[in-house]
Amino acid sequence: MAARPTLLVLHYDGGAFAGWQRQPNARTVQADLEDALSRLVGRQVTVIGSGRTDAGVHAVGQAAAATVPERWEPQELARALNALLPRDIAVRAAAEVPLSFNPRRQAVGRWYRYTIYRGSQRPALLRRLAWHVDRPLDTDAMARAAGLLVGRHDFAAFTQPSLAGRRRTERIVARAGLRRVKRLLLFDIEADSYLPYMVRRIVGGLVEVGTGKRSLAGFESLLRQGPPGAAVFTAPARGLCLMKVRYGNGLFDDETDEDI
Amino acid sequence: MAARPTLLVLHYDGGAFAGWQRQPNARTVQADLEDALSRLVGRQVTVIGSGRTDAGVHAVGQAAAATVPERWEPQELARALNALLPRDIAVRAAAEVPLSFNPRRQAVGRWYRYTIYRGSQRPALLRRLAWHVDRPLDTDAMARAAGLLVGRHDFAAFTQPSLAGRRRTERIVARAGLRRVKRLLLFDIEADSYLPYMVRRIVGGLVEVGTGKRSLAGFESLLRQGPPGAAVFTAPARGLCLMKVRYGNGLFDDETDEDI
Repeated sequence: MAARPTLLVLHYDGGAFAGWQRQPNARTVQADLEDALSRLVGRQVTVIGSGRTDAGVHAVGQAAAATVPERWEPQELARALNALLPRDIAVRAAAEVPLSFNPRRQAVGRWYRYTIYRGSQRPALLRRLAWHVDRPLDTDAMARAAGLLVGRHDFAAFTQPSLAGRRRTERIVARAGLRRVKRLLLFDIEADSYLPYMVRRIVGGLVEVGTGKRSLAGFESLLRQGPPGAAVFTAPARGLCLMKVRYGNGLFDDETDEDI
Repeated sequence: MAARPTLLVLHYDGGAFAGWQRQPNARTVQADLEDALSRLVGRQVTVIGSGRTDAGVHAVGQAAAATVPERWEPQELARALNALLPRDIAVRAAAEVPLSFNPRRQAVGRWYRYTIYRGSQRPALLRRLAWHVDRPLDTDAMARAAGLLVGRHDFAAFTQPSLAGRRRTERIVARAGLRRVKRLLLFDIEADSYLPYMVRRIVGGLVEVGTGKRSLAGFESLLRQGPPGAAVFTAPARGLCLMKVRYGNGLFDDETDEDI
């Protein structure tokens, strides 16, 4: 039977998921997507994501590939999937890809955004999408620290010490920056790939710089010769969102929702 | 016992509430707030809101007054309330007001925002905060229609016919406008006060203009001599948010969260 390899761009509200990757006895995005796809096409379908997201982390631009029967044209597949998927997952876009396409290996950049809500009181409406920081923050110092991330660095300090010994810990950050939008602080980072918890530990480190607990030089030294796991303060998952996975071929380059 | 009349600015996620006003056998913002206040100060406290919001409608700037024992200084009251209130309500700010202050009668303007998400596919992450409209919209025509709302008009067409006969249906709209922010359409309106369902029926009418179901002239005629209830298409509650209640004395003028 002829098959059609299809790449999907996904939105999800991570709040009710134990992360991307299928696991027993837990609700995951991969499992919900595979179940909907399998129901739709009438046979077991496996999905390959561009990478995992942790429990509670959101996405407006996760990418995942699945091979479906040829009669499923991508736009029609997206519409039919959206009718079947639970309300906290949606397919944003779909396109046919070559059979050799691997969404994890072929990704050249992954853009994440972390949202901090500043203020003395809790944000009731944004509570699922932002980290509420009620201490005063020196956002200029935080923005300078964010700028230091750009380039090739050893991020061993920004992951679990147990992991740092077992794999390559260098990553290339193509861009990183912090913006103030009224009460929100938006931290954007795009790198080739990430170590587990890396973005959330970076944000934790930036907030330490903002509160004066860590100096700018101290932050910089984490990037230079930081001992594995030294940046222990980890921002909560709910402020993190995978905005976009970039592929060299320009696939889905227009398909980003910045307005979350 | 000396008492301190206090005005509170409230955030809430309307999704799990049957609206503002206390009613039996339903979860309401007023009841949750009164219960938390009463627990805190140790006696029954009644709260007067600036107005009601419907079931499902959000707020980042609802205002409500309560009289509490004098030992409760406003900032301390706000902090203590936030520790007691459920996660989907928060006190943003608090200030002492004169004993004669009435948050409903003294409000000179009420600013609402309605958020539409445009796109062929569902927005999973914004599903609680926006109305998803998947048909193509002529947003220029919608913006022109929105501009027609400014001024003094009889809004009988934009409420339930049964209500139109029983009360004054003229309202003064100080500003109204529609903006595109990528996939979002933001409709802002500020009026002295509103008829029940008025904003949601206006937004329904604007979307009819956007899809070509209603002409700009047809929309204008609703504002001139529209029969009561003629604008029947009502936008869903989840896209609506009370942004700010304006008082003549400048109270809380700096206390608006635009970033929701």
